[in-house]
Amino acid sequence: MAIVVQKYGGTSVANAAKIRRAAERVTKAVKEGHQVVVVASARGKQTDELIADALELNPNPPTREMDQLISTGEQQTVSLFAMALEAMGQKAISFTGGQIRMMTDDVYTKAKIRSIDADTIREQLQAGRVVVVAGFQGIDDRGNITTLGRGGSDTSAVALAAAMGAGECEIYTDVDGIYTTDPRLYAKAVKMKQISYDEMLELASLGAGVMHNRAVSFGKRYDVRIHVRSSINDVEGTYITHEVPQMEGILVSGATLQKDMAKIGLLGVDNVPGNAAKVFAKLAAAKVVVNDIVQTEVSDEKANLAFMVGSSDLRAAREAVEAIKDEVGCERLFIREDIAEVSVVGVGMRTHYGVAERMFGALAKAKVNIDSITTSEIRISCIVDRHQGEDALRVVCDVFELDKPAGQRRQ
Amino acid sequence: MAIVVQKYGGTSVANAAKIRRAAERVTKAVKEGHQVVVVASARGKQTDELIADALELNPNPPTREMDQLISTGEQQTVSLFAMALEAMGQKAISFTGGQIRMMTDDVYTKAKIRSIDADTIREQLQAGRVVVVAGFQGIDDRGNITTLGRGGSDTSAVALAAAMGAGECEIYTDVDGIYTTDPRLYAKAVKMKQISYDEMLELASLGAGVMHNRAVSFGKRYDVRIHVRSSINDVEGTYITHEVPQMEGILVSGATLQKDMAKIGLLGVDNVPGNAAKVFAKLAAAKVVVNDIVQTEVSDEKANLAFMVGSSDLRAAREAVEAIKDEVGCERLFIREDIAEVSVVGVGMRTHYGVAERMFGALAKAKVNIDSITTSEIRISCIVDRHQGEDALRVVCDVFELDKPAGQRRQ
Repeated sequence: MAIVVQKYGGTSVANAAKIRRAAERVTKAVKEGHQVVVVASARGKQTDELIADALELNPNPPTREMDQLISTGEQQTVSLFAMALEAMGQKAISFTGGQIRMMTDDVYTKAKIRSIDADTIREQLQAGRVVVVAGFQGIDDRGNITTLGRGGSDTSAVALAAAMGAGECEIYTDVDGIYTTDPRLYAKAVKMKQISYDEMLELASLGAGVMHNRAVSFGKRYDVRIHVRSSINDVEGTYITHEVPQMEGILVSGATLQKDMAKIGLLGVDNVPGNAAKVFAKLAAAKVVVNDIVQTEVSDEKANLAFMVGSSDLRAAREAVEAIKDEVGCERLFIREDIAEVSVVGVGMRTHYGVAERMFGALAKAKVNIDSITTSEIRISCIVDRHQGEDALRVVCDVFELDKPAGQRRQ
Repeated sequence: MAIVVQKYGGTSVANAAKIRRAAERVTKAVKEGHQVVVVASARGKQTDELIADALELNPNPPTREMDQLISTGEQQTVSLFAMALEAMGQKAISFTGGQIRMMTDDVYTKAKIRSIDADTIREQLQAGRVVVVAGFQGIDDRGNITTLGRGGSDTSAVALAAAMGAGECEIYTDVDGIYTTDPRLYAKAVKMKQISYDEMLELASLGAGVMHNRAVSFGKRYDVRIHVRSSINDVEGTYITHEVPQMEGILVSGATLQKDMAKIGLLGVDNVPGNAAKVFAKLAAAKVVVNDIVQTEVSDEKANLAFMVGSSDLRAAREAVEAIKDEVGCERLFIREDIAEVSVVGVGMRTHYGVAERMFGALAKAKVNIDSITTSEIRISCIVDRHQGEDALRVVCDVFELDKPAGQRRQ
């Protein structure tokens, strides 16, 4: 009997009918001979509602209390889920994070998992029960409830699959898999059969929703294959897995467009050790997430420093930079908000040349001006004018044939 | 610094404004030099909503899962309450039942408290925090969440006061104390300054809401004075306390009227040992709560058996009795639904005569027919025609002067 971990997100358990449908899927897996561990999120918009309740009482609530509050959402789902299974004649038991000793550090609202008591779960599975575990939550050493932050239930599910030696974790969601790019921006986008952890990590950090980085990292580290699939049909979704040889033949697996970004440049900064550190320390203190840092020397005395921030962080970033600019001898500050970033991701780039050339060529042919370029081992990103962003994504998708299944591309 | 336990019921924490008002009352007690432990119930109708969610998925939900579900209501309140206190500059921490090791047996939905870890709470109080504890819930030895059943939060609060050696437990509610009788039925009813545990237990079992029996029993056993008072003003309410000498001078402290009752009689039952036991075993198996049992011998061979049940149990009771009546040789069954029970309660009855006489006299004068009478050491109950119930309550209240404060009655 193989152990299967199935994770159901908030939209998949939003009401009684949806919980029942998910429970039916679970009983089907049991009838097929599996031992099933379910991980569930809070119902629909419930976490948002609880956060609103909190902010009404305290605009800056203590994070410990916030976790104590919002962890109730998942607890409600799992008990209801177990009841639905029992109503179908399937024995079931629900557990909070604390009850299966999902131990975390004590960084409330974004805790990290340290260990899980697989024995409690195994015992219940042996007794013929489906085990329904509250995702997103754990406890620290002193018994305080913690939550895992964004994408936390996915992380719980993958961690549980790892702890149980399940080998695979099914993530049921409202999309039917991972696409080569956002189908709302490129209608010809196709669903991928599989994608490597590293590619998924790049795509996720470029804003491609679906799976959160921490869950993917967990899967990579503990060798858990992640199957992202639809909660409303039985069609296979996308497998996130270790790199296999045939993946190397594919230059570009996916592409993304990020529009809510701004670029900040500090021109003519004094070229002395420690100045860049000062700037980024100031930004970190202001809790600004910074991407794509580029520093270029313009003379022996001066250097230019540029980086990207999310639009929602721009105001805080601007204030931070203006407070430090004189201290680092910055001659001029510039901010560009009318930009977008188009990126391509693929493990094939590790071993193949010519990807950048093809990307830049396609953009040039479409008369898209490139402001700047950054790359990682398996990613190339170009900053372009925002009004050209969607065109840029389309020509890039076309040139790398992201409208075709991976095996049919002539890359 | 004295420890004060304050319990806030569902109506007193129903929304953000009410939570804030309760939190203000707590900070006032802190400023007066107290260490405050708050016990809170679920907000407003939340428990009912969760039960409805459960029944939608399973008409007969497993009780363990039910407790896992409904315990979230109190958990939400306490974290929000702590946030409200912190917003007012008062350090606070919330705890679930499990977090303060409120250990219970494993009788889900009506668990009994076994022990409480007062050290955790004391440590937080010493650190200058208000401790906000989720009422109504505990955990069993294996870490399963349990709930304490009706009136559970009151029981939690009184048990905590006992464990902390607080001496007094304040119960904040939407009424301002305990009245000599229901003011909706007898407008001249007055609020009592104090009442003994035993009287309160009798009144509670006669349907006088406010405090549940288990909480009162706890207070009696562990010597915790209970102060029932309004959450919307600062007026003193009613103290439930040990009997004091002056209470003995008061013949009747309170009166009640119960209308939702029915009387069942089995006439001509074979007068052999074990027959009454058979009847009540059958009723217990049908989960019918039986009151005021009267058995009278009518001959050497035959006896009559009569008892009261709540109207909501009548159908189950009738089926149970009809299934057993031939076996016990019952000649005739009768059921009266058009009845009411008027009762008076007072510890003074233990030492004074004449209470029954005065009660029956007043009822006779008002031409109220008495069907039957039952008594306990501190209670006299009369079954009357239902249409005369309210009149009966009024004349009884008048004769015992329940419209006057206890000290001014000429009893």
